[in-house]
Amino acid sequence: MSFVAPVRDLLFNIEHLSGWPEISSLPRHDGLDLGDVSAVLEEFGRFCAETIAPLNAPGDQAGARLENGKVILPEGIAEAYAQFVEMGWQGLQHPEAHGGQGLPRVVGAAATEILNAANMSFALCPLLTDGAIEALLTAGSEAQKATYLAPLISGRWTGTMNLTEPQAGSDLALVRSRAEPADDGSYRITGTKIFITYGEHDLAENTVHLVLARTPGAPAGVKGISLFVVPKYMVDADGGLGARNAVRCVSIEHKLGVKASPTAVLAYEGATGFMVGKENCGLDYMFVMMNAARYAVGLQGIAIAERAYQRALAYARERVQSRPVDGSSREAVPIIHHPDVRRLLLRMRALTEAGRAMAAATAGWQELAHQGDNPEAAALAEFMVPLVKGYCTEMGVEVVSIGVQVHGGMGFIEETGAAQHYRDARILPIYEGTTAIQANDLLGRKTLRDGGTTARRLAAMISETEAELAGGGSVARAVGLRLATARAAFETAVEHLSAIAGTDPHAAFGGSVPYLMLAGNLVAGWQMARSLLVAEAALERGEDTAFMAAKTATARFYADHILPETETQRLRITEGAESLLAGLL
Amino acid sequence: MSFVAPVRDLLFNIEHLSGWPEISSLPRHDGLDLGDVSAVLEEFGRFCAETIAPLNAPGDQAGARLENGKVILPEGIAEAYAQFVEMGWQGLQHPEAHGGQGLPRVVGAAATEILNAANMSFALCPLLTDGAIEALLTAGSEAQKATYLAPLISGRWTGTMNLTEPQAGSDLALVRSRAEPADDGSYRITGTKIFITYGEHDLAENTVHLVLARTPGAPAGVKGISLFVVPKYMVDADGGLGARNAVRCVSIEHKLGVKASPTAVLAYEGATGFMVGKENCGLDYMFVMMNAARYAVGLQGIAIAERAYQRALAYARERVQSRPVDGSSREAVPIIHHPDVRRLLLRMRALTEAGRAMAAATAGWQELAHQGDNPEAAALAEFMVPLVKGYCTEMGVEVVSIGVQVHGGMGFIEETGAAQHYRDARILPIYEGTTAIQANDLLGRKTLRDGGTTARRLAAMISETEAELAGGGSVARAVGLRLATARAAFETAVEHLSAIAGTDPHAAFGGSVPYLMLAGNLVAGWQMARSLLVAEAALERGEDTAFMAAKTATARFYADHILPETETQRLRITEGAESLLAGLL
Repeated sequence: MSFVAPVRDLLFNIEHLSGWPEISSLPRHDGLDLGDVSAVLEEFGRFCAETIAPLNAPGDQAGARLENGKVILPEGIAEAYAQFVEMGWQGLQHPEAHGGQGLPRVVGAAATEILNAANMSFALCPLLTDGAIEALLTAGSEAQKATYLAPLISGRWTGTMNLTEPQAGSDLALVRSRAEPADDGSYRITGTKIFITYGEHDLAENTVHLVLARTPGAPAGVKGISLFVVPKYMVDADGGLGARNAVRCVSIEHKLGVKASPTAVLAYEGATGFMVGKENCGLDYMFVMMNAARYAVGLQGIAIAERAYQRALAYARERVQSRPVDGSSREAVPIIHHPDVRRLLLRMRALTEAGRAMAAATAGWQELAHQGDNPEAAALAEFMVPLVKGYCTEMGVEVVSIGVQVHGGMGFIEETGAAQHYRDARILPIYEGTTAIQANDLLGRKTLRDGGTTARRLAAMISETEAELAGGGSVARAVGLRLATARAAFETAVEHLSAIAGTDPHAAFGGSVPYLMLAGNLVAGWQMARSLLVAEAALERGEDTAFMAAKTATARFYADHILPETETQRLRITEGAESLLAGLL
Repeated sequence: MSFVAPVRDLLFNIEHLSGWPEISSLPRHDGLDLGDVSAVLEEFGRFCAETIAPLNAPGDQAGARLENGKVILPEGIAEAYAQFVEMGWQGLQHPEAHGGQGLPRVVGAAATEILNAANMSFALCPLLTDGAIEALLTAGSEAQKATYLAPLISGRWTGTMNLTEPQAGSDLALVRSRAEPADDGSYRITGTKIFITYGEHDLAENTVHLVLARTPGAPAGVKGISLFVVPKYMVDADGGLGARNAVRCVSIEHKLGVKASPTAVLAYEGATGFMVGKENCGLDYMFVMMNAARYAVGLQGIAIAERAYQRALAYARERVQSRPVDGSSREAVPIIHHPDVRRLLLRMRALTEAGRAMAAATAGWQELAHQGDNPEAAALAEFMVPLVKGYCTEMGVEVVSIGVQVHGGMGFIEETGAAQHYRDARILPIYEGTTAIQANDLLGRKTLRDGGTTARRLAAMISETEAELAGGGSVARAVGLRLATARAAFETAVEHLSAIAGTDPHAAFGGSVPYLMLAGNLVAGWQMARSLLVAEAALERGEDTAFMAAKTATARFYADHILPETETQRLRITEGAESLLAGLL
């Protein structure tokens, strides 16, 4: 079935949830209006639907292969990537100074979602390039920026992140790769890196590897890791490509999903690398890159949920099976008329839209925080990264599974397409930090470190929305009550975890994932409640009634069926630690 | 990693949850003691672990293939099946009169779980044979029983269920296959059947297809369907095999999982069939077969959860990553020491054990109901089938997904093995009736039809356990309070759904899956609470302390972390219908 980019919903979020008035009045976005944004996203949506999406299923079937050290990508990928580069899509949200279009992150995020919905395997390549750009913008020297940024932002070169080693996955303290200084100021990088997305391929003229390694005598642990840029082909002073560097692809993985995306084992055998930023500060820089990548992985969760929802919805409208439960017809009807199929589809839709709404609000805070002059937005943006990553990927896995269910037996047959989403999505709560890693970040760095200030600030903002809802119609008031209950559960969790973290860290961190899921559910539900207020006002004015009525109905479904899950999570946090720690395995 | 059959836990359930004193005193089980049962299950567990389980991963990789109309199964399957037959395992729970061992269903269920945990693709063949045996025992003529039962019960012949057609999946009213009477009293069967598990293979001398089809002039809908037995090879009067019947395998499916199990499209082209039971009563007989199969699919959910849990547990004990959250070591530790990994593993374990406990209690009621002289046990057994099928398969899908998560990035690599369970399990909430079909059965036939009598009887039995818990120690009392809350939520749901079903069936059936999940969670939690009482008493006596302490801890975890989910389901049922029906898709 064909994919349609959810541009209307993305624009709604940009306009109403992301702080657009403030963003569009920033000097760097002078003159940008929503019409421009709409035109960009419509064009990108068409390109993705027509050119990228049709490669998704064949790419899965063919998979990436390694032959004689070269990765062969599925048919059509190289041509599509060339078009992607030619049209300049890689540069959408990157600085104009380096050849990008300089659009706000809220627009870049929308485009990332669309690309991933069309084809997650394809989208992983630009996603990693974005990460490399981010790291070089943050920590690269002027010379490094001059050498690498323009080709990366154009998409002519691609980027990779090289963190993981066989013994060092979640735990980067265990990184062993070595970087020996050479006389010319460069380094010789030696070690094995695994799980390197698009670590080897021939889509681009060059690949820019960003690699964590230890210099001689560096301290043990995470404070002895430095960051290096290691090009696949050496780059001469005027940007021309030279000799092949001493990094080679040993193998690629045989994976459950995203099979068209090559996941490489890379052997660095005295490869020439250049230190990025200061020695032993690699992890800090990598965190910049990882924060961007974590947020983008959250978008992947939303994207694959959207794709699975569109597929399930189309099937449910077509598939005729069984009479209505109320006996209103003696003939079998399309299964979308059956109450439980409605329930499944609405759950898919509500989870997807709520995740998207949360991601849009987060991109807004990121944009406002970008110049460093808005610490409150920065704190909110930081708080949100593990939520977008953790909640939207967990919900993505749930939504694609429901997508299979809606298809019944056909869902289990690979040709139907639902099974591919089920396989592809499963990596999302794992890579760029598992849900538990996100939860530890949320609890440790984002909640406890500032004494709960940001968490409480968020709760206060939610209360303001509750007050608005209380002044609305019956649906708004009902949603407001659900939101208030969920917000209270969040506050209770924050106070409880803050109180016990010092004395009983096992109990506190045993509640970290429930806390993340509670907070993610709450913030997503909050953004749906904000959307409801906008939609109800639009309906009163008679604007865009079909879209706005659906938005209202979805917000209400979210509040009644999904927000109440916060209470179970709260119970696990405040009353579950004892049985968790007493459990015998 | 190697698989170990959970015989200790299965025996605990048989002894303490299944009504063993009553079962073992039935005349037909005269003289059977637990020592015998233990010996049988230990031997079967060894056979499965040594012979069947090692074929699981290679079978997945090779898959079943169709070549020139013949299905080629992966290497080793035929030899293993021959051993299975030779050892007489197919006949474990079937009547001695037809060559079986006549062991109680509670023992048969335990063996089915073990076989499925070892290798779900392999186990599907005996599972379908069990269904065919069940249907022939119920509705076959004496001649049909004489012809087919002994070879099926020996495993020399295998059975299939032929219900589904392209246009008739959940909705059997749409079955179109035709059965034209021939002069000799047989029928010519014509039509296409899809999704036929082990519909074609060469493991057995003969395959006995049980097929739904319509005789000329039969009423439309489900009341015009008859059941036929259609052997792959004709059987002569003395049981010898004759000509190949006119049924052929057109193709086999390319599936997400259970790839070693061939799922066939069968073309019946005037095949010779024999009516089973009365004309137009096929669906009633098929329901007997389906009830057995649905229960067995529930066991598959438990089985694959157990296998995934064993694998994740072994990995978590081995994989060293990150320091403890309490700073108690400066070295990285096995990840099982991290609180969230504990939480994931305990959730896997608690869901698995609770599902197993519920299945054991159900098998007990089935056994007591078997002779038709215990209507109360029969009503409970009937009530439980959709719960075991629906709840244990939904939880199976959740558990295998957690299993991938525990493995981190390695979980996404096929060679690790966790991904196969994730793929295999996904069919379970679909085949033999989706979760929604189970939920409609639970609500319509099992709850509303008897005016809620059985549901209330179950609630009353749970209250009795609460009273026992109230007289116990602090853990028992705490578990009792959780159980009481969940039981009250169930009662509220039953009363609410009963009240609205007549006037608002869409609202009632929109709550049917939440009702199934609530009831399944409650009954599983109840059986864990019963287990807790047994385990605490055993601990006081100092018996089997390691096992009993773990049982206590797991029951407690279930009560604190899983039982409270009933409250969210209750909310969806009593307060969620309006937003469900107002949702716009």
